Amino acid sequence: MTTPLRLGIAGLGTVGVGVVKIVQQHADLLSRRSGRPVAITAVSARTRHKDRGVDVEAYAWEDDPVALATREDVDVFVELMGGSDGPAKAATEAAIAAGKDVVTANKAMLAIHGQELAEAAEAAGRVIRFEAAVAGGIPVVKALTEGLAGNEITRVMGVMNGTCNYILTRMQSAGLPYDEVFEEASKLGYLEADPELDVGGIDAGHKLALLASIAFGTRVDFGGVELEGIGEITIEDIHRAADMGFRIKLLGVAQMTGRGLEQRMTPCLVPASSPLGQLEGGTNMVVLEGDSVGQIVLRGAGAGEGPTASAVMADVIDIARGIRVATFGQPAAGLEQARRARVAAAAPYYLRMQLQDKPGALAKVAAVLGDAGISIDRMRQYGHAEPTAPVLIVTHKTTRDALELARSALAGTGVVEGSPVAIRIEKV
Amino acid sequence: MTTPLRLGIAGLGTVGVGVVKIVQQHADLLSRRSGRPVAITAVSARTRHKDRGVDVEAYAWEDDPVALATREDVDVFVELMGGSDGPAKAATEAAIAAGKDVVTANKAMLAIHGQELAEAAEAAGRVIRFEAAVAGGIPVVKALTEGLAGNEITRVMGVMNGTCNYILTRMQSAGLPYDEVFEEASKLGYLEADPELDVGGIDAGHKLALLASIAFGTRVDFGGVELEGIGEITIEDIHRAADMGFRIKLLGVAQMTGRGLEQRMTPCLVPASSPLGQLEGGTNMVVLEGDSVGQIVLRGAGAGEGPTASAVMADVIDIARGIRVATFGQPAAGLEQARRARVAAAAPYYLRMQLQDKPGALAKVAAVLGDAGISIDRMRQYGHAEPTAPVLIVTHKTTRDALELARSALAGTGVVEGSPVAIRIEKV
Repeated sequence: MTTPLRLGIAGLGTVGVGVVKIVQQHADLLSRRSGRPVAITAVSARTRHKDRGVDVEAYAWEDDPVALATREDVDVFVELMGGSDGPAKAATEAAIAAGKDVVTANKAMLAIHGQELAEAAEAAGRVIRFEAAVAGGIPVVKALTEGLAGNEITRVMGVMNGTCNYILTRMQSAGLPYDEVFEEASKLGYLEADPELDVGGIDAGHKLALLASIAFGTRVDFGGVELEGIGEITIEDIHRAADMGFRIKLLGVAQMTGRGLEQRMTPCLVPASSPLGQLEGGTNMVVLEGDSVGQIVLRGAGAGEGPTASAVMADVIDIARGIRVATFGQPAAGLEQARRARVAAAAPYYLRMQLQDKPGALAKVAAVLGDAGISIDRMRQYGHAEPTAPVLIVTHKTTRDALELARSALAGTGVVEGSPVAIRIEKV
Repeated sequence: MTTPLRLGIAGLGTVGVGVVKIVQQHADLLSRRSGRPVAITAVSARTRHKDRGVDVEAYAWEDDPVALATREDVDVFVELMGGSDGPAKAATEAAIAAGKDVVTANKAMLAIHGQELAEAAEAAGRVIRFEAAVAGGIPVVKALTEGLAGNEITRVMGVMNGTCNYILTRMQSAGLPYDEVFEEASKLGYLEADPELDVGGIDAGHKLALLASIAFGTRVDFGGVELEGIGEITIEDIHRAADMGFRIKLLGVAQMTGRGLEQRMTPCLVPASSPLGQLEGGTNMVVLEGDSVGQIVLRGAGAGEGPTASAVMADVIDIARGIRVATFGQPAAGLEQARRARVAAAAPYYLRMQLQDKPGALAKVAAVLGDAGISIDRMRQYGHAEPTAPVLIVTHKTTRDALELARSALAGTGVVEGSPVAIRIEKV
């Protein structure tokens, strides 16, 4: 096959420019590896004339991404605009209807409309590939869909928002409070226009929902992801957790349980010595667990021009090579909606509270926990200047329900100031 | 496509049994993911009747793997016998000639005969896949061949022999000498029948040569791999290196340089805090570096029934799905023989010597190094009871030639006992 594979690229932001650079700089390499040339025929973006650091004048220009997506001379529509709806979705649908394959980095669109788009693509005999939508340059969609296809997947975990991990590790290393590091990250341009997408866990939640669909053969269910951001994490918890040998991460976990599909994107404690615990800065890490393979850990840059463009090009080269895998690894029409596990599996928890310096105070705390059926693994009370003492408890496995019961009972003991902080400890 | 993909499996050792288990236990899963059933039609092994923990009575039996490979009712020949030549090679050639695709875990065969086999497969329109040959369950062949296909690969590194890593980390944690831990590993069944394959770096060298071929688009050149085993590593060097913040690993490194292709499988020092440095026990890790993606790290079990069978099944499912990629990522006929870099790129080195307790001894050492053009980054002399003192030096970047010059000059100073130990420090 020596006819070129012709790309139409919509969106010339960071990632789009990265893709153009690879196509321009590595024409020979791409052609040798793909077995055919890879060419850009047309592009589209919000602003036509702008210094992007690459020359796109040789490509046909379309103001309208839908027009781009349906051009005769485009084989693959490369959607790099973003946004769950609007032009990205309209153009993707138009591309499929016009018989084009689609490569996209758009996690929001697929997390929300993935099922319907995958079904449309399947009906049209086209593929939608989205390696760049999850964990940037890490080839995790491929590893899960193809590399571990012989496994029943037992759990998928990941630190998949580099900004959150940057904030949490920077808080620890610099001893700075959340608000200050958030400002720093904002000035460095690390945050999305709507920062809640990052620090609220939404962006990472989108990614988790996509991986869960592949892993468990279920329809993408972003609405079923329990979301909790990092905005409430204090520098005190970071330091105390470190004292007990843990790190706090915004950790995504998806697993199929007897109670249904559990999907969480929440702050968790993980052992400081684990690969996840050792992950510093903006790097991403995904952990895949299968019944045969055991645990596979993948680590790399989760964002940025080069890494994300690398993932887009992997999908493009797959298509050029004739590799055609169903969007979520098996026929979309056959995917079922998973029952949602209403409560997370039991786990040990980290509890931090301020205890009044009164005789018998600790006994009351211990009694409340005992009554709630929660047993204590480790406890530490710190010396203190104030009238209250910080107390840390690592519990044995318990349910969130028992924990909430205990938290409100603790608030009623009269010896605990405010409500205790509780953070799940994930076994990694 | 609902016709089953029919496997003929030659070799029913650990990995073969693992593959049979997956096919038997996950029939539905495999069928949904592949779009067609995956079935075993025939098997072959040295001994027919033997308790293997799986029932293979339902499959046709062949005493001769060549007969198995050429059966009418076999679509994919799964070669799990091992050995670079002999029956494995004969049966693989026969399978290709009979129009079968091949899935193999045989690193030795491909490291030595990969080019010729890949060309034969290509000429016959067949594929040879070998995910299981490199780093067990880690989908690294796929990650490199497909996931990073948009990158010019700049370096491939890896700890790819779990036994060596077990021995080195066990020496450190238990404070035991090499010989004792070697005996332990032997009793635990961790070593190949010919232990030199493990501790001599040969097995890991085979794997490196395969990855280098994909990474750099060159013919597999196992003969071009600089091999050095771990037999000379002392517990003292492990402890001293740890003092300086390093770990000793049997590390594979392949990179294309201006002087040609450099392939090394040798003991190296890496920072204790790096992912490679933190790798404990029998786990494998591969580091892939590309011009766009930056650094990708993959970690997982490098051996064992489940992980290796998982990799075999990934290849089988690829074939069932119609995924057909050239053996080494691009047409074999077009691969060129790389010029071999005769000397490794410059690097910092760790030097350990026993220095006689004489006035001016250290000055002599410093002078010799200076004369050889080697500058010192860090130096440490230890307190001592014997008449000689252990001295550690971390050099700045230097060449192996300069280093050898310095080592023999040091032996001639009359103040250094024996020959200094020199180990390369790899920047990871």
